[in-house]
Amino acid sequence: MRSIPELQQLIGLAVAEQRFPAQPKELYEPISYLMQLGGKRMRPVLLLMATDLFEGDPEQALPAALAIEVFHNFTLMHDDIMDNAPLRRGKATVHEKWSSSVAILSGDVMLVEAYKLLMKVPASVLEKVLKVFNETAVGVCEGQQIDMNFEKRSHVSIDEYLEMIRLKTAVLLGGSLSIGALVAGAPNPQAQLAYAFGENLGIAFQLQDDILDVYGDPEKFGKQVGGDIISNKKTYLLIKALETAKGDDLHSLENWLLSNEVDLKVSAVTALYDKLGVRTMAEQQMISYADKALNALQQIDAPQDRKQELEAFAQTLLVREC
Amino acid sequence: MRSIPELQQLIGLAVAEQRFPAQPKELYEPISYLMQLGGKRMRPVLLLMATDLFEGDPEQALPAALAIEVFHNFTLMHDDIMDNAPLRRGKATVHEKWSSSVAILSGDVMLVEAYKLLMKVPASVLEKVLKVFNETAVGVCEGQQIDMNFEKRSHVSIDEYLEMIRLKTAVLLGGSLSIGALVAGAPNPQAQLAYAFGENLGIAFQLQDDILDVYGDPEKFGKQVGGDIISNKKTYLLIKALETAKGDDLHSLENWLLSNEVDLKVSAVTALYDKLGVRTMAEQQMISYADKALNALQQIDAPQDRKQELEAFAQTLLVREC
Repeated sequence: MRSIPELQQLIGLAVAEQRFPAQPKELYEPISYLMQLGGKRMRPVLLLMATDLFEGDPEQALPAALAIEVFHNFTLMHDDIMDNAPLRRGKATVHEKWSSSVAILSGDVMLVEAYKLLMKVPASVLEKVLKVFNETAVGVCEGQQIDMNFEKRSHVSIDEYLEMIRLKTAVLLGGSLSIGALVAGAPNPQAQLAYAFGENLGIAFQLQDDILDVYGDPEKFGKQVGGDIISNKKTYLLIKALETAKGDDLHSLENWLLSNEVDLKVSAVTALYDKLGVRTMAEQQMISYADKALNALQQIDAPQDRKQELEAFAQTLLVREC
Repeated sequence: MRSIPELQQLIGLAVAEQRFPAQPKELYEPISYLMQLGGKRMRPVLLLMATDLFEGDPEQALPAALAIEVFHNFTLMHDDIMDNAPLRRGKATVHEKWSSSVAILSGDVMLVEAYKLLMKVPASVLEKVLKVFNETAVGVCEGQQIDMNFEKRSHVSIDEYLEMIRLKTAVLLGGSLSIGALVAGAPNPQAQLAYAFGENLGIAFQLQDDILDVYGDPEKFGKQVGGDIISNKKTYLLIKALETAKGDDLHSLENWLLSNEVDLKVSAVTALYDKLGVRTMAEQQMISYADKALNALQQIDAPQDRKQELEAFAQTLLVREC
């Protein structure tokens, strides 16, 4: 089995070698620009690991892995317009560097390019792979819409939040693993277990992200620590804090939500989180999803050492500091 | 063979019966809204006629026809954002009625829905159909980008213009016919002839549109007659006029391009077009593409009466007054 750095390198090389037509350059240059900003390539790595898990050939799954990375970057390109984000991985977003029109249209063609790449899976599994991909893509769009709707709502429940992150983040991890399994010729129930592993891992991963945004090491965390608190983002921590707090604590939390202070707000809200114990609650929730993921993995009928590789990778994703 | 009104009704019914999830409603309501604004359903009708031409069952091709109509409406939803258009078929555009973010994301999910519908073609032709669709979709995106680039350029050649309308408008007609043929089990060379019929018909259709924008009957033409002249749109007529005009005519035309007058500008530029004979040139170019289309149709190995139906439909598209 190939190591994770080897798989990341394989994907990095495939991204670097991807060629698009020279014209119209406003359509294709933004794709190469965004794709080459880097990132952990977590989704395509998981896809290739799933192929490996079922003793398939990762090289054969490479176009599908690239399809997932292109799709993921398409969602980033369009989400950044909607979120009015100036930066992506420390560089100007496509709509800032070019224009919103360019980012819309270039994103559209990326989605088609993802389908073009998926066409390269073995013909015998094409239909199955496309069905998983279609459902995944619809889920990601639904998740983004629900996330945008949350911004306008005063109250969101934990269940609603978990469903939103399942759609926005986790189904793509599930889809990646399922497609990797299908390319290796895994039967449907096995591919579904791979999906369940990925989906639960994805929810755990997002909960970890919420925790790191508050408690991450500022030296290692890529974004500004406390960014979610400053922007009143409805994360697991904030929703749980609002649910748990009573009396003065609730009053204080609600007041801080109205505040434009930056540093004081972050430290005060963090102190409230500590007092209410929401970090522990989030960690327990995260562990419970991680357990579900590992439980699905254990049920998979594959060599134990290959399963251990995936388990180890899952652990690195969940104990990360950034 | 079914009549065109029957086919239009079949599609209208399929559009009306299309059901999307209830939530998130900002994602799905705009799809139903835009799809039900109507239109001639020209592309799906052509697809079903191609299936009929090769003695296939139009009912079986209905999901693919609907896919093409969904795809076409996806391009309208996103193009309207880029063009900052307030109205579509006399009603508020999606980005005006909801927001740009809603129009971006709802459009994205429509593109995925188009693929989901295409999955319903017979498994034996799925790969072929998807390949045609992918190429078509990429072409349409390229055409839109080139069209936007034209707005910023001072000079565009007739060849560049024809290539732009081929991509932006014609490949989707070609793709529709080709997919309809493939669903009926037509061999590749026959499907390619159907494609050539559609592509050339599409170019002729767009040239006719350019002519009607200036010379159409204001009572029957849906848009404002002279709209292209007012906005200095680089149509076949304007490009040809700038190429042909000399001396005072060229000077006068260039001056009118700088003018903000509306009524006077339309009548003056139209008078210049008449003097230069660009309407006739555009009509000749249109006829030459229509001939290419009919020539491809004649080469198709299909019952003569069915070919005549398609020829008659092509004629109605090209002698229309609106």
